[in-house]
Amino acid sequence: MNTNWIKAFAPATVANVSCGFDVFGFALHQPGDEVEIRLNDSGHVTVTQIMGDANLLPREAHLNTCGVAVQQFLHATKLAHGAEIKLTKNLPLGSGMGSSAASAVAALVAINHATGNKLSRKDLLPFAVEAERMACGSAHADNVAPALMGGFVLIRDKETLDIINIPTPAELIAVVIHPHIEIKTSDARQAMRKTLSLHDAVKQWGNTAALVTGLMKEDFDLIGRSLEDVVAEPVRSIFIPGYDRVKQAALNNGALGCGISGSGPSMFALCKGEASAQQVAKAMQEAFQDIQLKADSYVSGINSNGAQVISSQ
Amino acid sequence: MNTNWIKAFAPATVANVSCGFDVFGFALHQPGDEVEIRLNDSGHVTVTQIMGDANLLPREAHLNTCGVAVQQFLHATKLAHGAEIKLTKNLPLGSGMGSSAASAVAALVAINHATGNKLSRKDLLPFAVEAERMACGSAHADNVAPALMGGFVLIRDKETLDIINIPTPAELIAVVIHPHIEIKTSDARQAMRKTLSLHDAVKQWGNTAALVTGLMKEDFDLIGRSLEDVVAEPVRSIFIPGYDRVKQAALNNGALGCGISGSGPSMFALCKGEASAQQVAKAMQEAFQDIQLKADSYVSGINSNGAQVISSQ
Repeated sequence: MNTNWIKAFAPATVANVSCGFDVFGFALHQPGDEVEIRLNDSGHVTVTQIMGDANLLPREAHLNTCGVAVQQFLHATKLAHGAEIKLTKNLPLGSGMGSSAASAVAALVAINHATGNKLSRKDLLPFAVEAERMACGSAHADNVAPALMGGFVLIRDKETLDIINIPTPAELIAVVIHPHIEIKTSDARQAMRKTLSLHDAVKQWGNTAALVTGLMKEDFDLIGRSLEDVVAEPVRSIFIPGYDRVKQAALNNGALGCGISGSGPSMFALCKGEASAQQVAKAMQEAFQDIQLKADSYVSGINSNGAQVISSQ
Repeated sequence: MNTNWIKAFAPATVANVSCGFDVFGFALHQPGDEVEIRLNDSGHVTVTQIMGDANLLPREAHLNTCGVAVQQFLHATKLAHGAEIKLTKNLPLGSGMGSSAASAVAALVAINHATGNKLSRKDLLPFAVEAERMACGSAHADNVAPALMGGFVLIRDKETLDIINIPTPAELIAVVIHPHIEIKTSDARQAMRKTLSLHDAVKQWGNTAALVTGLMKEDFDLIGRSLEDVVAEPVRSIFIPGYDRVKQAALNNGALGCGISGSGPSMFALCKGEASAQQVAKAMQEAFQDIQLKADSYVSGINSNGAQVISSQ
């Protein structure tokens, strides 16, 4: 039994990406959560330390996203080990940046490493999805899949976890702005209508198909036209103060498109090139400031690697 | 004024392509309709001959899909010419193979040639869509766009006619089987539910995105998995006797996927390679024969050229 501390990093992710509710997500390089895991022979999973959560996250393993993921892993692999977990939260809670997903995924990559890397990233995915079910009330994969596998991913089918990597242009840069308010994923999901008109649905699937085409053809104009959301944005943007103003600021400053990151309140924009992204980030942050809302901004290319072990001694 | 007879061909098309209701369509090499047009100074559009329609199509220009398309063209280009139209129907009416679209598109390519090819294919599209509105009761572009432009197309937005070409693998071969029953597009559209569940919609847009990815990556297995339709097929397949049996015959014989062509009754399958397609065509035809339904079969690669002028003297 490897009793070294294994430390892994998993990145923030942007889910939905405007048109792709529940099917698209991509990984950033930074920020991300770090999880340290050490195997023991207790037979139990314990969370002994959490930093950076302002004491808000549950310490009980079965209520903590890292704990659930590791319990799922040990149960499925029939390993009798116990494990001790330390979590460093760099992602804000309830931010729409895949905070719970990053913690679960970092924990899984660490425990898999500690037990000899017997499972592939794809094999780890169901455990992360179970952790999401516990944390957010729904078993969605659009944060955990890109956090785990990296890149821009399509969840073709969430029941079979058919995950497909979509190539993206090197010049594609993401901006994420996190205003300092919290929205619970479970609340944001409840706000969604359970049915939609055929007319809106056709628009949405025209755009999901077009976004993939734009990304694969490196057609930035088409990427921009496809970043349209007639399903989630009309309902969820209401929860985000200044949404229209911030989106307009992004578009006025050259963003290809702009929308809600996951279930919000963070907003994302996609841009062509680093300089454009920096300008867009500044404009969006200032637009939040105009309504007295403090907001952090992140600028990152698409992280094609996903979660990584960063130390193992 | 060019008073030669200009003859153009426009191909059959498969619209929807399982997951892509109202957004996907592709063109076959054969069969197709032929339209001959000769300009005159009458100021009127007349349809003087239709062959192959068993006398079922209206001869009045404003009620005929060719006539409407040409009227739209002459009105928009402010040309004072009249035109005489002869139509040879090789496509069965009400077959789900884009019969009305092929006639309209062939007429537009011919009249554009006769008047000096001043308009691009994209410019011609709105006139073809207007002809569809008259013929089918809805202004859909998923047959006219591939018939006009060729290839596998995505209609990202039917209001702005944002049409995108999707590259396809050379080995991709389509089978179309036309059982000898007729379904009116307007009836088939009325059968569609006007709303759908968010759950079904997410499935559908996961598949539209995945089909594009499969086509562009030349991933035949992914193409097959994506050819799933939870929106139109459950309702429209009821109108097609033996549907489940014929689909199963296609899949049992190696088709990547199988579904309804347009609004039916024709069915299509996509296959990897000509030999596979021939086997699938035979199996589907036999399955219709088993229930005493005569059916024609067509096997074709994707026609990347679309409609063509074939003589101009």
